[in-house]
Amino acid sequence: MVGSSGSRSDALKPGGTARLAAMEEDPALQLRVFDLNCWAIRYLSKRRQERVQLIGDTLCQEGFDLVLLQEVWSEQDYGVLKEKLGGCYPFSHYFRSGVIGSGLCIFSRFPILDTFLYQYSLNGYPYMLQHGDWFCGKSVGLVVIKISGIIFNIYVTHLHAEYCREKDAYLPHRVVQAWELAQFIRHTSKAADVVLLGGDLNMHPEDVGIRLLRGWTGLRDAFAEAKRFEGCEDGCTLVPDNCFTAKTELLPFPPGIRIDYILYKAASRFAVKCEELRTTTGTAPGKDIPYSDHEAVMATLRVRRQSRTPGPALGTAGPALADVVNEARTEVRVGLHAARRQRYSSGRMAALALLLLLLQAAAGLGSLAGWTAGQPFPKLSFSLLAFLAVGALLLATVLHLFHTMEVKMLQGTEEEMRLALRALQDRLGPPEPGRRAPSHGPFPSRPVSASFSS
Amino acid sequence: MVGSSGSRSDALKPGGTARLAAMEEDPALQLRVFDLNCWAIRYLSKRRQERVQLIGDTLCQEGFDLVLLQEVWSEQDYGVLKEKLGGCYPFSHYFRSGVIGSGLCIFSRFPILDTFLYQYSLNGYPYMLQHGDWFCGKSVGLVVIKISGIIFNIYVTHLHAEYCREKDAYLPHRVVQAWELAQFIRHTSKAADVVLLGGDLNMHPEDVGIRLLRGWTGLRDAFAEAKRFEGCEDGCTLVPDNCFTAKTELLPFPPGIRIDYILYKAASRFAVKCEELRTTTGTAPGKDIPYSDHEAVMATLRVRRQSRTPGPALGTAGPALADVVNEARTEVRVGLHAARRQRYSSGRMAALALLLLLLQAAAGLGSLAGWTAGQPFPKLSFSLLAFLAVGALLLATVLHLFHTMEVKMLQGTEEEMRLALRALQDRLGPPEPGRRAPSHGPFPSRPVSASFSS
Repeated sequence: MVGSSGSRSDALKPGGTARLAAMEEDPALQLRVFDLNCWAIRYLSKRRQERVQLIGDTLCQEGFDLVLLQEVWSEQDYGVLKEKLGGCYPFSHYFRSGVIGSGLCIFSRFPILDTFLYQYSLNGYPYMLQHGDWFCGKSVGLVVIKISGIIFNIYVTHLHAEYCREKDAYLPHRVVQAWELAQFIRHTSKAADVVLLGGDLNMHPEDVGIRLLRGWTGLRDAFAEAKRFEGCEDGCTLVPDNCFTAKTELLPFPPGIRIDYILYKAASRFAVKCEELRTTTGTAPGKDIPYSDHEAVMATLRVRRQSRTPGPALGTAGPALADVVNEARTEVRVGLHAARRQRYSSGRMAALALLLLLLQAAAGLGSLAGWTAGQPFPKLSFSLLAFLAVGALLLATVLHLFHTMEVKMLQGTEEEMRLALRALQDRLGPPEPGRRAPSHGPFPSRPVSASFSS
Repeated sequence: MVGSSGSRSDALKPGGTARLAAMEEDPALQLRVFDLNCWAIRYLSKRRQERVQLIGDTLCQEGFDLVLLQEVWSEQDYGVLKEKLGGCYPFSHYFRSGVIGSGLCIFSRFPILDTFLYQYSLNGYPYMLQHGDWFCGKSVGLVVIKISGIIFNIYVTHLHAEYCREKDAYLPHRVVQAWELAQFIRHTSKAADVVLLGGDLNMHPEDVGIRLLRGWTGLRDAFAEAKRFEGCEDGCTLVPDNCFTAKTELLPFPPGIRIDYILYKAASRFAVKCEELRTTTGTAPGKDIPYSDHEAVMATLRVRRQSRTPGPALGTAGPALADVVNEARTEVRVGLHAARRQRYSSGRMAALALLLLLLQAAAGLGSLAGWTAGQPFPKLSFSLLAFLAVGALLLATVLHLFHTMEVKMLQGTEEEMRLALRALQDRLGPPEPGRRAPSHGPFPSRPVSASFSS
């Protein structure tokens, strides 16, 4: 952002808004949005405090309308930003969840009218301590703001990380998160004029989760839609030029990868266009470090009222969307298969540990009652074995419960997807444009008049 | 229901719908809703399978439009009901969550267009095994249906049980659930014509959670609004006449308590009225057992189109609602205080266990290195102590993590309530009726035109 701030046209500067709009025929609202995964993990992220200060200074100078941040794990860092940004962004919200916190926060020039948080039902495994996603309580946060009478539903989110693309054990969880994100946006945004989503989705642009999210909500990708683009090649937000990125992970993708997005859509009486999209390009200007290990994404959007046109509610045409939902459903099923296997293994381990304990108890009791001659085992080994069995029993039981929950949530998602597919297929049959069909998405309008009488 | 089915007027029977409506001036839709906490816990609930069959038979005979069930914990029981009800209620959905399942399901005469599940962020404690609420993953389920072009958002839920009214340790969690329920309904129902909520809320009608839910969503209580009522005194749904209820728990409330509800509201272009409300009254007719330990609630609603009138979006007037939100916020703060104390205690316990382990390790190493003369402890006691310390460390760490999450969620809710109060207070100041103010609830309409230009 700052890396190219000198090259921005004056029209895009805060004071220049009017000029740009005056060139057009009708009034337009211009909204400048900033999105960044801040990589602010206490004790782990390099030069964290320095970078938080730098992000704060830059946001103050640039004067965006909306700032969507992820990985602000520490509330102290949020406090630092809030204090620094109080003048330019008087309204803000931090979303709390999980053990560590969701890491999500929003700064706004406009009053925040309402907030709501949805925590994803699946988010990795608590025993994968080296990954730690589970402890973050990954969520999607919603804030409602109103600018010039236009209702904006602003969503910020961060999905489960991808640690190994070739053998991605978390793919089913991420697909479930993408589905829940899409469902949450669909269900909560029906009265919104403009919907905006920013965040680190941890998915490449053509991954099934992104196609599902875009297809199922009708959200459009600011990068793909932007009239002008400036920044890293292909809009990448994890790039080798950034000194904090792991170069080996990016080897298969020479220009880098794009996993941070700004997506948007408007209700039928409004039109949103992306005038410009920019990314930062590694090292911040005048500094020796970048803002984060991710690049920031900055969009300049233009919102205009228009006469109501019944546009398509979904982003992807019916048959293509059905294919995407089917593909996602297959991933969920793969996850379900793995979860069931793990549930079975942990259950078997618990049963074996219990059996061992019972045998030990029988042997111990037998020894006490004098049924056996002398001590069957040395006391120490006997006690250690009993403790190990208790430990194994507890651990296996907890794992079994956890994987049972995982199975339930995967089954629930699979069922929701099945219902969605049926509705899509119904719709692809005899189309019947209903009064509310667009706002209710892909579902058929089937008037049932049995109980309606006059 | 069956207990008084003989006394129902013909107009209320499925075939009689038209007659009732014909007496009125304009077309009206009549909807008959059934709600029951089924108490179908495998191995624990008395005469469960017999009662599930009985519930199924009765629902078939009575032919409601919508059936909202709770505590159908086993998917087998759901399967039994689904098979039995397939003819009269061709559409159904079971909501999966938690270890056991949410227990929530819906049967409908009309196609289910969409479903969504929200799991409450707080729901008791996993170590309270004797209560078990945590394992159920208490949630609110939403299904969208469309009847005669009218969009219905149907919610079914079950909140955390109250085990001791005098010293209710779960009150803050239940208040958080009531708040999340209200927020979920508000945010997801903005395009709905009619909103309907049924479930076991585990709160008496004047409890803060119910007042919060009704005030914040504008939902009306079918019992309070019904033109005709028939059933247990005061609409109670846990009554001493039911042979499955714990009589001692009901001693302070001679007629019983009302904790199962049907609530509803309509968008401004529709009007909903409750024509009749009924409850079952203990033992089912012709049988020696009731349907459940709860009484069923049955409402006959009448939905009519009307010219759009900008009615109040909230159920309670501003100042009164602010009082309710404040009261709820106080409960959340009490919970926050307790959760912080527990987080501290578990953290201290973990630290002490770690200290003990370190001391043991030092002593053990010292002994191995020959720094001390002979064996400092007998081997067995030494090992047992080490195992106990490891166990205590693990347990305390898990507890600490759990209570940290609890603190985060309580803080988050408290913050959301603070924001809501501020918005309410703003609104109570200079009122300004905005274009969308009703659908966006209690928030002020403040046009900010800085970025809007022509």
